Amino acid sequence: MNASRATRFRLCLLATGGTIEKTYDAHEGRLVLGQPVIEHLVDGLTHPDIAIDIQRLMAVDSLDMQADERAAVVARIQAIEQAGTADAIVVTHGTDTLATTARAIAQQIPHPTCPIILTGAMRPYRVADSDATQNMAQAIMAARLVAPGVYGVLHGRVIAAERIEKDYERLTFIERDDVDRS
Amino acid sequence: MNASRATRFRLCLLATGGTIEKTYDAHEGRLVLGQPVIEHLVDGLTHPDIAIDIQRLMAVDSLDMQADERAAVVARIQAIEQAGTADAIVVTHGTDTLATTARAIAQQIPHPTCPIILTGAMRPYRVADSDATQNMAQAIMAARLVAPGVYGVLHGRVIAAERIEKDYERLTFIERDDVDRS
Amino acid sequence: MNASRATRFRLCLLATGGTIEKTYDAHEGRLVLGQPVIEHLVDGLTHPDIAIDIQRLMAVDSLDMQADERAAVVARIQAIEQAGTADAIVVTHGTDTLATTARAIAQQIPHPTCPIILTGAMRPYRVADSDATQNMAQAIMAARLVAPGVYGVLHGRVIAAERIEKDYERLTFIERDDVDRS
Amino acid sequence: MNASRATRFRLCLLATGGTIEKTYDAHEGRLVLGQPVIEHLVDGLTHPDIAIDIQRLMAVDSLDMQADERAAVVARIQAIEQAGTADAIVVTHGTDTLATTARAIAQQIPHPTCPIILTGAMRPYRVADSDATQNMAQAIMAARLVAPGVYGVLHGRVIAAERIEKDYERLTFIERDDVDRS
Repeated sequence: MNASRATRFRLCLLATGGTIEKTYDAHEGRLVLGQPVIEHLVDGLTHPDIAIDIQRLMAVDSLDMQADERAAVVARIQAIEQAGTADAIVVTHGTDTLATTARAIAQQIPHPTCPIILTGAMRPYRVADSDATQNMAQAIMAARLVAPGVYGVLHGRVIAAERIEKDYERLTFIERDDVDRS
Repeated sequence: MNASRATRFRLCLLATGGTIEKTYDAHEGRLVLGQPVIEHLVDGLTHPDIAIDIQRLMAVDSLDMQADERAAVVARIQAIEQAGTADAIVVTHGTDTLATTARAIAQQIPHPTCPIILTGAMRPYRVADSDATQNMAQAIMAARLVAPGVYGVLHGRVIAAERIEKDYERLTFIERDDVDRS
Repeated sequence: MNASRATRFRLCLLATGGTIEKTYDAHEGRLVLGQPVIEHLVDGLTHPDIAIDIQRLMAVDSLDMQADERAAVVARIQAIEQAGTADAIVVTHGTDTLATTARAIAQQIPHPTCPIILTGAMRPYRVADSDATQNMAQAIMAARLVAPGVYGVLHGRVIAAERIEKDYERLTFIERDDVDRS
Repeated sequence: MNASRATRFRLCLLATGGTIEKTYDAHEGRLVLGQPVIEHLVDGLTHPDIAIDIQRLMAVDSLDMQADERAAVVARIQAIEQAGTADAIVVTHGTDTLATTARAIAQQIPHPTCPIILTGAMRPYRVADSDATQNMAQAIMAARLVAPGVYGVLHGRVIAAERIEKDYERLTFIERDDVDRS
């Protein structure tokens, strides 16, 4: 017999910008953060038993993320985590300072009660051969499976916040050995 | 400091056909299982620390899968699992009898030493609005995170083999309550 | 100095169905003519000085087009041509009997006052590697350039109605030499 | 009866760069002219009776095109036109100075013996919602239909070289009234 789950998994998705959301502006002749993209990306995925609440915080290139902006991201996550309104939180973020934000969250919330996953993309969703769909899909899958904690998810890897490092040569995330290096 | 994992995660991907691999044959004017597709799907994903070994078993619509074909799928999985050459196994399969094959595997291999994940798609990879990329990406992510066992992964859900059921109305997989119903 | 044309080119686009409009029905597990597609195809093109009026006549596979349906297509074209409300007419049609309809139009309207272009596709618009966009774009371009008459346009070729023949081996349209063969 | 044309239509396609060929460089985090794209665009089109000879001249943003580079483009076209080896010539070019190059060609070749068509795109081929495929398809169609001369083809419009003007507001080409303004 079939019994559908009465409650769906509650996922809070916080959008902060980053390469994943860049789109081509034909007037300026370059990629910009001009319009929301995450909503369309999620729309193209199928998650019948996940209630996805998208909250748009900002739309910045993470290289330009200011201290107060990063603090705002951390504060929002803390508020959601404390309210207990989400079974997991996924944050889309530029890859350049994703590790910095991850560590800030881990520091501020040393014992989270739910998984907090940061992801992004090396190629914008609206550009050919993008890794955006894969990363978003895998971040959502990981959000349902990992123990509470703060992680980065990219290219099929789940890495604890303290260990995330961007590999600029191979354009992916890797796991560093030295835990104490912030 | 950065230390790359010397050993990559070893994933064995067995392709059996199904809707996920159907392509349009302009001569016949319909979708057919005429050429391998899984290889291209995987090629479009980025998994720098996963060694993906694709083995093509067959290319059948799962409604047409014969007893001996299903047995061949189970036998191959058993051989790989026993050889210990894979850290996880993902099987792409038609959705109509994916549950049947999953249960056959669970029966034959009651205590697997690695995750065995079955997935597929409701819409072919080579057709608009396909769920193929999402399901493959999430199956691979789940293969790295779940405990050894036999599961179906589709649309962001991980369901134990004994509980998988295809929901023909909503065109997804659901989890049944009644474990003893085979 | 720039002077924009006060009057835009008036294109009437009649949709009759055909392979070009087939979409995947996940319930039936096959391609069907279930929802309008031409509107989306045209939406994806940019024609700032063409006023495109889409009229949906029917949605049939051209192999199944009945005599009265074909007559309805011809009658509608005749009405538009006589009313003089279009500078050109483009008809999307299944490729199997496109030539038949083209000849019926040419017979009924021996001296058209505008170009009448029939086109379609060998692969549906909503399937990978489709020729739909190319054919639609080229049919619209031809509609602006050719002398009044009845033509089939496919794969970069413009062929007079009496000469159109479907090449089932190479899956394209060719021009036959023998004009009198209807 | 079917008689295939013994001689195919000979199209010479000269690639000079421009927005149409820009691709995302994940290392630099921006769009660049780093790899040839026109070959792939043409590969995705179907032209069974056109022999397309692609000649890559350069890969520059047309805002940066130097006088000697523009002269090289004109010289190559002149050589091909004089040799009579092409039934038509299509040039892919950045849209910013496409009009300049068109006029230079028209000046150098006042009585061409074949159509010479310049086209490009407002959005790169490898970016979402690109007009590249439409413009290329329509440029090729126009090359078969127009009288010998020099033209710009974009967004379904064919404009004589002397009249082409880029509309920076609506991001398309328009036809100016004043012929003598170079």
